[in-house]
Amino acid sequence: MFEKYPATVKLRNLTDNIDDIVLTPERIERMCVESCGFKMIYSSERVNDDILEGLSCLAEESRAVEKMHAMQRGDVINTIEGYPSEDRPVLHTAMRDVFEETINSDKAHDATGLARKEIDKLKVFLEEIDTSEEFEELILVGIGGSDLGPRALYHALKAYQKPGRRVRFISNVDPDDAAAVMQETDITKALVVVVSKSGTTLETLTNEQLVKAKFVAAGLDITKHFVAVTGEGSPMDNSEKYRHCFYMWDYVGGRYSATSMVGGVMLGFAIGFENFMEVLKGAHDMDRTALNKNMFENPPLLSAMLGIWNRNFLKHQTVAIIPYSQALVRFTAHLQQCDMESNGKSIDKKGTPITYETGPIIWGEPGTNAQHSFYQLIHQGTTVVPVEFIGFSESQYNDDIELEGTTSQEKLLANLLAQSVALSVGKNSDNPNKVFSGNRPNRLILGKKLDPYSMGVLLAFYENKIAFQGFVWDINSFDQEGVQLGKVLANKIIDIFRDPSNDDFPLGKAMVSHLNY
Amino acid sequence: MFEKYPATVKLRNLTDNIDDIVLTPERIERMCVESCGFKMIYSSERVNDDILEGLSCLAEESRAVEKMHAMQRGDVINTIEGYPSEDRPVLHTAMRDVFEETINSDKAHDATGLARKEIDKLKVFLEEIDTSEEFEELILVGIGGSDLGPRALYHALKAYQKPGRRVRFISNVDPDDAAAVMQETDITKALVVVVSKSGTTLETLTNEQLVKAKFVAAGLDITKHFVAVTGEGSPMDNSEKYRHCFYMWDYVGGRYSATSMVGGVMLGFAIGFENFMEVLKGAHDMDRTALNKNMFENPPLLSAMLGIWNRNFLKHQTVAIIPYSQALVRFTAHLQQCDMESNGKSIDKKGTPITYETGPIIWGEPGTNAQHSFYQLIHQGTTVVPVEFIGFSESQYNDDIELEGTTSQEKLLANLLAQSVALSVGKNSDNPNKVFSGNRPNRLILGKKLDPYSMGVLLAFYENKIAFQGFVWDINSFDQEGVQLGKVLANKIIDIFRDPSNDDFPLGKAMVSHLNY
Repeated sequence: MFEKYPATVKLRNLTDNIDDIVLTPERIERMCVESCGFKMIYSSERVNDDILEGLSCLAEESRAVEKMHAMQRGDVINTIEGYPSEDRPVLHTAMRDVFEETINSDKAHDATGLARKEIDKLKVFLEEIDTSEEFEELILVGIGGSDLGPRALYHALKAYQKPGRRVRFISNVDPDDAAAVMQETDITKALVVVVSKSGTTLETLTNEQLVKAKFVAAGLDITKHFVAVTGEGSPMDNSEKYRHCFYMWDYVGGRYSATSMVGGVMLGFAIGFENFMEVLKGAHDMDRTALNKNMFENPPLLSAMLGIWNRNFLKHQTVAIIPYSQALVRFTAHLQQCDMESNGKSIDKKGTPITYETGPIIWGEPGTNAQHSFYQLIHQGTTVVPVEFIGFSESQYNDDIELEGTTSQEKLLANLLAQSVALSVGKNSDNPNKVFSGNRPNRLILGKKLDPYSMGVLLAFYENKIAFQGFVWDINSFDQEGVQLGKVLANKIIDIFRDPSNDDFPLGKAMVSHLNY
Repeated sequence: MFEKYPATVKLRNLTDNIDDIVLTPERIERMCVESCGFKMIYSSERVNDDILEGLSCLAEESRAVEKMHAMQRGDVINTIEGYPSEDRPVLHTAMRDVFEETINSDKAHDATGLARKEIDKLKVFLEEIDTSEEFEELILVGIGGSDLGPRALYHALKAYQKPGRRVRFISNVDPDDAAAVMQETDITKALVVVVSKSGTTLETLTNEQLVKAKFVAAGLDITKHFVAVTGEGSPMDNSEKYRHCFYMWDYVGGRYSATSMVGGVMLGFAIGFENFMEVLKGAHDMDRTALNKNMFENPPLLSAMLGIWNRNFLKHQTVAIIPYSQALVRFTAHLQQCDMESNGKSIDKKGTPITYETGPIIWGEPGTNAQHSFYQLIHQGTTVVPVEFIGFSESQYNDDIELEGTTSQEKLLANLLAQSVALSVGKNSDNPNKVFSGNRPNRLILGKKLDPYSMGVLLAFYENKIAFQGFVWDINSFDQEGVQLGKVLANKIIDIFRDPSNDDFPLGKAMVSHLNY
């Protein structure tokens, strides 16, 4: 469908003689959209007014905002027509529509009601452990969506951590992951939160057993220390095994679950209930913004469309997301999952193989560190990498030093802004090794300060951007069939480890034989 | 030059009707090379015998191994002919040729002699602090090459850490980076190692001052707690300011400096002198292997050539490096720097703009975590991503659990091997959402156990692979002019922060004005 929209044809024609990026103060001033305390500045993208107009038309022709409405009100959008599929609504937005309740539909209303119930349970639980002062550490056992989002948010908001508390994460089935964490943990004061929607995730159940064995060996009462976050009715929904069971639902995808109890129990422990509610508030405000029909007033939609320009028309295969904020050290890894698992698809919603590019490869590390790492390639390499920069005017700890007339925060910001200019403008030189081609598209997302509210805004900004791209590409961004084959073959190889005489999978056997030396 | 090699033309012809990957037990058995305790299995690459032969010819025609010899013996290879350039030898390999001393040249001999002197100084220093028991923590202040390599090695070898010791890192000019670390550190027992070859790195000097201020405020003696690793004669080479100064030299590039004192002081503190020497031994053994003229017996060269096949002939823009080892959690980030800063270049060694692709984008996260993150795209996305898997037969801590007949380590390995098969073989289905195209190239690098020796081997394997690719592409892999423009513009914006009336850089001023809200 994507290629049949008239705007697509128009946009393709606009790639013929595309202008260099001519950055002017006026352009920097004008190409900016503001919402929920953030500005997105897109003057360093390789676009002009015709292209922006075309992208706006494409958003309209593909009914992107209507599809966002459909998602938020709980229509069954996680589906492939004519084939067996998950056939579910997608309602992570209901997890945070818990304030004034703005979405008017039965399904969203029900989901919001259930979310509120868990929030109330969380409040009581947190009061209980605040009072008892039993716990100083929380170990979150989960993987993928039950790990990356919570981990990213924990690091982002560690500056707001309650005194005397800390959180650790165990995710990998690699036994060294759990061993390294357990070696540093005083388990007598540790709460273990096990997160698996299905209650059947191999890595998580294995690590739960590994951790549990340590508690049992130490004579500790599992039902005091272990908490479950799982689907209601899953094998893990068992109050005899856990101190508490918090629920999630099949309409909240793992990679979109950070604002459900998947992130909530851990964040509530670490930064307190009120701060967790601020995260939800920020995310909810951005969800509302995503319903604005005007692309120029809807930052996640505009960002999605600029990404489509870079991906489908300028043909760039990757996007670097580079936060100039050390606290966002794991945010790119979370977005890597959220984006690539959602939009790394090759069939459309009717099951037809598609002939255009979908989700790009998302990668990146925080700046300024990244400047001393891979920036050589993004400035002078043979492959152009669109960059999304993220920055904040203020630091979190406000523990800074002024040297040679500027603070570290100012040096950080100076570097951030300079890179955006350098990539788009470039520089000529008689020395070919000092030539910078410029025309390397990038945009800036600037906030005042990274705090619980703005973190919620930023998270939902990206979640909604990803959903918009899926809507325009006409793919299902909410399933993940691509991870199944690996699981099936891994189980066949596990069978070989279990019984080396097993001959069912000769390729696996040949692989395993390489290990025996 | 690259495109003029006869083998390049031959290889291009071989892309016309390229076979599917037909994986058989025999192919898995055969397409394997072993060295220094590692196997590299390349049966899941999209190659056949003709292609391998062509790649071997290309390696010969480009004199890749001769250039490796030239590098290791200290020829001036960091240069662009006819233009001002760094004009230096590249001798990180001399940092570990400190055992039997195998390279027979004056320059390498001198460099090795200097390296030995620093190793001797390190030994004495470590004995001194072992005896005095003054320090429990080490804070490494550095960025880029002075951070990523050491950090990757520290995490990789944390299982070998001496009891009662730990290491923390401060790199980013973001003041929150230092603030978060300092909040968790007992500075009375902390050694601070400041690393900057030039002694002028903005981030490092700023963070040094920030950290120093805490020590001064606590009434501690800086000259007891602070150690420098820097170029001899740099502004930091000052024994009045530091307890010790360890040296590095301009022929050891930052991104290749992990086996110099840049990694040595920290690793010696963390895992002990003998373990650090094991790292050097492993790296040195792999440096020797890299001098083998037969591509099929030279894993870093073979890996380089397979990468060139994927990059220049199959046209893949990225490479995912995915270790199935949680301890290698930061190794990909180090390789991202080492590779992209080395080979993200657009001119050849004569300064001529090149018309072929050079260094790919390197990215990745550890498996099995990655399986629950971005594997959807690498299995079913519209962009093919070549993958380099790394794995080990044994875990580090040997603290494992058997569940349903297999250990976690076996489950980890089963997943690793299964993914290699799944990506290359694929799977058909009547349901288009369950179709896996296969033909997604990947290779496996398998070791017995991640320990100091094998870590050294693995590090040098990648360093040498990167150098080989640069040799074949005829680029200078050892400079980084691409990071200069950003620095210049950042300084102009710092001037604006220092004096808001400054009008020298209107674009910067327009950018800064977005911050003021």
